[in-house]
Order: sequence, then C-alpha cells, then structure tokens
Amino acid sequence: MTPIEAFDMVLFGGTGDLVMRKLLPALYHQHQDGNLPTAGRIICLGRSVADTSAYLSKAHSLAQGYLGKHYNDADWQSFAERISYLKVDATIPEEFQDLADVLNEFPNRVRVFYLSTAPDLFAPISKSLAGVGLNQGNARVVLEKPLGHDLESSNKINDEVGEHFEEHQIYRIDHYLGKEPVLNLIALRFANTLLEPLWRREWIRDVQITVTEQVGVETRADFYDKAGALRDMIQNHLLQLLTIVAMEPPASIDADAVRDEKLKILRALKPLTPETVLTNVVRGQYRAGAVSAKPVPGYLEEPGVPANSRTETFVALKAEIQTWRWAGVPFFLRTGKRLQERLAEIVINFREAPHSIFGRNTTPNRLVIQLQPDESVRLYLMAKEPGNQFRLRPVHLDLDFKEFFESRSPEAYERLLMDVIRGDLSLFVRRDEQRAAWKWVEPILEAWENSLDAPKPYTAGTWGPAASSALLSREGVSWHEEG
Amino acid sequence: MTPIEAFDMVLFGGTGDLVMRKLLPALYHQHQDGNLPTAGRIICLGRSVADTSAYLSKAHSLAQGYLGKHYNDADWQSFAERISYLKVDATIPEEFQDLADVLNEFPNRVRVFYLSTAPDLFAPISKSLAGVGLNQGNARVVLEKPLGHDLESSNKINDEVGEHFEEHQIYRIDHYLGKEPVLNLIALRFANTLLEPLWRREWIRDVQITVTEQVGVETRADFYDKAGALRDMIQNHLLQLLTIVAMEPPASIDADAVRDEKLKILRALKPLTPETVLTNVVRGQYRAGAVSAKPVPGYLEEPGVPANSRTETFVALKAEIQTWRWAGVPFFLRTGKRLQERLAEIVINFREAPHSIFGRNTTPNRLVIQLQPDESVRLYLMAKEPGNQFRLRPVHLDLDFKEFFESRSPEAYERLLMDVIRGDLSLFVRRDEQRAAWKWVEPILEAWENSLDAPKPYTAGTWGPAASSALLSREGVSWHEEG
Repeated sequence: MTPIEAFDMVLFGGTGDLVMRKLLPALYHQHQDGNLPTAGRIICLGRSVADTSAYLSKAHSLAQGYLGKHYNDADWQSFAERISYLKVDATIPEEFQDLADVLNEFPNRVRVFYLSTAPDLFAPISKSLAGVGLNQGNARVVLEKPLGHDLESSNKINDEVGEHFEEHQIYRIDHYLGKEPVLNLIALRFANTLLEPLWRREWIRDVQITVTEQVGVETRADFYDKAGALRDMIQNHLLQLLTIVAMEPPASIDADAVRDEKLKILRALKPLTPETVLTNVVRGQYRAGAVSAKPVPGYLEEPGVPANSRTETFVALKAEIQTWRWAGVPFFLRTGKRLQERLAEIVINFREAPHSIFGRNTTPNRLVIQLQPDESVRLYLMAKEPGNQFRLRPVHLDLDFKEFFESRSPEAYERLLMDVIRGDLSLFVRRDEQRAAWKWVEPILEAWENSLDAPKPYTAGTWGPAASSALLSREGVSWHEEG
Repeated sequence: MTPIEAFDMVLFGGTGDLVMRKLLPALYHQHQDGNLPTAGRIICLGRSVADTSAYLSKAHSLAQGYLGKHYNDADWQSFAERISYLKVDATIPEEFQDLADVLNEFPNRVRVFYLSTAPDLFAPISKSLAGVGLNQGNARVVLEKPLGHDLESSNKINDEVGEHFEEHQIYRIDHYLGKEPVLNLIALRFANTLLEPLWRREWIRDVQITVTEQVGVETRADFYDKAGALRDMIQNHLLQLLTIVAMEPPASIDADAVRDEKLKILRALKPLTPETVLTNVVRGQYRAGAVSAKPVPGYLEEPGVPANSRTETFVALKAEIQTWRWAGVPFFLRTGKRLQERLAEIVINFREAPHSIFGRNTTPNRLVIQLQPDESVRLYLMAKEPGNQFRLRPVHLDLDFKEFFESRSPEAYERLLMDVIRGDLSLFVRRDEQRAAWKWVEPILEAWENSLDAPKPYTAGTWGPAASSALLSREGVSWHEEG
C-alpha cells in the first residue's frame, strides 16, 4: 500500500455543491482519521467569494450540516489550516499564474487538479494549466461526469485534455466504483473460492443492476433535459457496475490489469440495432404522482423543462455479454427518477437447483449487493426449519458493514480522493473504457432520435412503466424488489 | 408429511438412563408442542420399580431436572396420563403376555418397541415379542447402539432380530443423524445451487469430522474397556456423518434413496491394510491430567479398568473415498475422551483460490457445521475491510439456529422418535450400511489385535496424542480448533 505523499489538491468549482457537500467532508474525514500527511494543502478556486476567510466561513457552516455527528470544532480548525482560497476565473488563462505561484512554493509535491466544473471547461482548464507549466509528471487531473453527451463530444474532450496530460495523469471518477459493497464484490469474487466457480452462465440465471431515485429533476432541468437517464446514469455508472460483476479474474490488481478486463466486457456487449433497441430497451418519463405519500408534479411540469420534452427519466434494458462465461445470461439494468424507492443494488440470481428432492417449495439462491440506502452484501439460501418436518425456509446470510466492522464505513469519495493522491488508477475509468461505453449506447440514442414514439409515461412513485416489468417477464423473471 | 398416527410406544429399559434422560423428555416436548395424537400411550418396562405410581414418581422427579425451564406442572400431568409401567423381565418370554394384553386393547395402533437395553437382549426380546404375536406389520423395533462389537457379532444380532422382523420394521438409531445442523447440511447441499457445484475434489481440500468429550470413561468401564473409541464412536456416528457429507445427491428423499447413496460411500471407502492402519490411524489412551483446570486420573486408574488395558480412548484417522467426486480428498475423523473440549463438528476446508491477486493474506474458505456444544452452520469468507486500503479480513456468515429461528431447537431424539411413529426410515441405519461400516473398521481392529504396540498416551485435557496432529501435518493441514 503506497503511503500518501505530500500533496496540493486544487479544487476547481470550489464554491460549488460537489466540493461543499462531498469533497471537503471527504477530506475532513481523512484528516480526522490521520490519513493525510501534514504537508497537504487544499486550494479551492472560485469566483464568487472574496478571500480565504470568507470561503472558510462559508465552508465551515456548510460542513457542520454535512458532517453531522462527525463534526468536531478542534478537528475542523486543524483541517481548515490546510485550506486556502484563490479567486480564479477558470475561463481566463492569465489568472492561472496566481495558482502556479502558490503551487510552486512546493515544486515536488503531488498536484491534484479536481475539475468540479462543467465539462466544457475541462479542455480550457487543461490548456491553461499547461500554459503555466502545471502539467508536469506530478500533476493529476480528476474529471467528473458528464464527459460529453455522446461518443464524438466525449472523444473531443478526451483529445483536448490529452493534448496536455498523459492518460496516466487523467482520473475519470465514477464514485460508484469507490463504494464499499462494490469493492467487497471484488474481494468476494477473487479472494474466495466459493463464488468464482459459480460466477458463470452454468449457475447464474440473470443479473440485475438497479439505481433508482425518489427525487425528480430538481434544479438541474437545464442540464438534465439535454442528457436524460441513459447518458446520465447508464452510460457511466450502471455499465461500470456491470463490468465489475462480469469481468474475468484479472491477473493482478494493477490498474491496467483490472481496466483491461473491464474493457473486454464493454467490448463484448452485444451491439444493439434499431430493431433490438425496440425490444431490449425501455424508456420512460414520469407523470405527476406521489412519492412517499407526497404529491409531486410530472416531468413536463418541472420548472425549466420544455412542455414537449421527450427526454427519458427512466431506462430499463437488457444487455448481453458475448463471452463463454456469460453467453445467454441477461444483464438487466434499470435507472430512473421519481421511483418508489431510492435504491442502488446489484442482484445475482442463481439458477434453480437442477433437481429438487424437497418438492416445489425452494427459492433459487440470490446474492444482493446493496449500495443504497444501506451498504450490505446479503446471500439468500434455503435452510431447514427446525422441527420434525423437513420444511425449508429461505434465510439470508449478511455481510452487514455496520455490524461486521466497528469503524465508520467511509464515503466513496474519501477512498477515491486518496487513490488519486496515491496515484492508483484502478478505480478510475480509462479512456478506452469510456469510448466503448459510449459506443455501446450510441445505437440507443440514435434509435430514439429517429423514433416517432415518445418515452412511456409512468406515474411518479411507482417502479416505472409496465414495459419495464414486461422486459423481464418475457424471460420468466422479475425485478428484485424488497418488501 | 405423514401425520402422527395413533401409537403405543413401549420402552424397554424403562428405568434406565437413556429413557429417563432422553426419551421421556423428548416425548414430553412433543406432547407439549401438540405433536402427539391423543391416542398415544407410552408403556415403560422394567424390573426395579413396583408399579406405575412408583415409576411416575421417579420419572417426575428426574424429568424436572432434565427439562429445566421447559418443565411445567400442567403439561407434565397431562403427559403422565399417557404413561403406564409394566414390571416385565425382558429375559423371561412368559412375562411378555402382560405386554401383549395391554397392547391388544388397541390392535391397529402403530407399535414401537424401543430396545433401550444391552444388545445381547435384542435377539431374545425380538423372539419373545414374536412369541406373543407382537411382530405384526404395525410393529417397529428401535435398536440402540452398540449393535455388536464386530462384523460377526453385528451380523448375528441382525440375523436374529431379522428372523422376527422385516428390515423395514427395524430402526437402527444413530442420534447424530437427527441433529438439526446435520439435517441442515442436507438442506444446504440439495436445496441450493451454491454448495453442490463446489462439493467435490476440485474445490474441497479436506474434510474433518470431530466428536470429542471432556468426560472420561465414568461408570461405563465395564462396557467401554471391551469396546474402545473405534467401536463406540467411529464405526457408527463418525462414519454416518461422513456419509451425509460425502453422498451423491439422492434422486429423492425417500429412505432407501438416501440410504442407497450413503451405502455407496461406505462401500467406496478405501480399504485399510495392516500397513495403512499404521500410517493412517492413530489410537491413544489418556493419562492423568487436568480438564477445565480440574485434575483427573488416567484411564488405567479409572475404577473397573484393568491396569494393563490397551483399549483406545482416542482415535484419529484418515479415510479416503474412491469416487470421481472425492478421489484424493482426505476425510479426517477424530474422537476421544478426556479431551480439551466437548465438541462435535464437521469442517469443510475449501481449497485456496488458485491465483491470489491480493497477496498472501487470504485464508481459504471454510464451512463449519457444529453439532456440539452449540448448533450452528458458519461459513468463513474473506471480505474487504472498509477504508482506503484494500485490506482483506476473514469474516463469517452464520446460520445461527438460536438467532434465525425463534422456536426451541428440538433434540435429535424428538425428531427420531416421531420418525419412527411416522414410519420414516430415512435417518435410520440400514443393515447393509452397518455391515459396510463394520467391514471397513475390521482391518483396524485386527491390526491392533496383532500389534505389540500400545495406544499412544496423551495427557487428559489436551487434544490427544501428537501423532494426531502429525497425521494431518503430513498433508499440509491442521485440525480446526477454535480459540
């Protein structure tokens, strides 16, 4: 395990929501846990605040809310000493000299540039950083999604950033990959003999990956209406989770060994055609309804959404992986807004026992890796009820993170930020992965573009349009929904 | 599930320890749980007590102790109404007429004759029962171990009992087969797809079956010194547990389908030769020591044990099963008295992952089915510790019978007695199984008979002689001992 070196972390978009809500709290926790070296500065950039003192005052009051019971005055004071604020307009190359002056006080430190900005700034910021000599070998840029809105625009951004930074300096973050249950899935698969022999078409019936939200489009209509659920969730998060489930055992945990395996899966996804998009992909758009018994408007009534918008707020699809291991095993992906529950989980449905000696009363085995709202790994088995009968009962064995591990379960961003400083690219998306993912979703985007149909309406607070259930019932299965 | 029919249960040896300590409490529990039909009598036979009233008074005071918190005055009173006592000397055929008179009040009831007596009475009792016409189709005899002391004597008893009862009327009881974790092992193996594909030489490194006691020979020296641990424990209990672990999936849970599979395993055990007995079997005899910090005498100092006794109080051995599934997988069996702990467990050690990407810090997976002192099924896995590192930690998933099931976990005898009334032979040992088990242990008995060596001494309160550990370490493994 590489130790954390002396570092300077530069947060572009320093006054924005991601920095305040996720990045500073993550760094605070790592500071509190003693994981940050004394020589570690956090330099926040923005335009809207005057100086460090004003910035810290804002950050402090927000942090108290976000950190909750983990907030502690003394810890915050010592953490805040790491933070300085620079008023820099990221669109004005000349203003980067101030940043360079600050960083050059420690020329040998690891330098992390976290671009928590709109993606159209990724290229100009990269260019400006290079312009003041901040693209040396000790520099790393972290890119947040969305990286473009299709294959072409994503290629363009990657090309432009790539003019100034090497691929190994570029950290495309997908915070789902930093979640403990996802990392545990890697450990469960490759540090045990119990799962890997079963992890294949012979024993697995289907895989379901669900990431649903109860919230609607909120204040993001401007962005969201141009993106939609496919670009916003499927192309990145859900396909990334799929690669973790499906990849072959890598030869090592080196970043490229792992990413080579993930890439192979993305490239093995069966391409969709205009015809199979119609049968294998369902898009939906929410109508007025009630979520948790509270009435909510439909998508078309949301502020900022055009009344004739055909943007999908829900996608369910069936993916197939053309390999020996997975041929014939459907991977069902599903995501959406204004659904019944906030839920992120990976469900592995094992096949039925080939011959039942206990009659029809057995349920096939199932492994559920839940990322939200709780973090858990749960294995469903059949066991015998105690007593004279030989009656079977479904039971589950839990790897409950709260119960098994006394310590606080860290947020995904904590781990990922440390990985960046440490220079570990394993959990970041390589350019060719991103390209393969875009390539796979493009036929869906095109088919929708060329289609006269609108997304299927669904009532807010349900599990999406009926076509989503029908997609699975055609194959004799149903979505795993608890309760 | 066949309901419990009207029955008469006759307990030979009615004043003995097994009846008082196990059988009456088991029947009491089943009565209390409402599982016994109103038409169900319990007729206890003996010589030492005068009449039913004296018998019930003795049974009542003992039951209060054995039942503990489950004892309840009202339940006992209604249970006691089922019980009558008959003064019958089992060695005097004429006295059986009294029993016949009582049973013939209800000629169509299921009749269970539980022979809780010395095995030399099994044949005479069977003959006497037949003599008064009590061996009809509604009769079932339950035989307790030991059924002889070698293949020949066991054949003789089975032949003689078989003159009066059909094989399907004979219930050879092995109470280990009625224990919940053993039954759960059957459910786990055959009602789930998760274990069966791994349940073979490709994925299992070795199997360990341990049944140890802290007690010494106690008051049983007279019997035990002629028997020894091999006859008393290995030939029956441990080999039976081995068959449950190793059998192929039966085509049904019918008694003979299951017992056919168990028999195949006993017949596939690699025969021992005088040479392999020396290398694969360890016998020991305890010397003075301390168990749970209390000093205890050695076996040769126990009352009733001849000073030059060569009887083994400990056996450890390696068995091999010559089938495609199990070739090359050692099954280590171990039993003994005056050992460090009272423990009965089956341990399945899975192989190491064929290629570790996490370095050397992984422990192979392990499934532990514990029968004593607690009943549990525990699966040991490697998981990831939460936090920035990718550090692995062994965790265990528990099927805890206390936790998973609110109800009282029934004693093995409860289930087995109900199985007898119900006519379910699945968990009883068929004659050919017993024969195969004796046949396999005979070369060990002979080799010891012909050997000049004495059993290896071990200090009471340890895990047995060093040769027991050496038996495993030669194969690169060690006994699973907790703590």
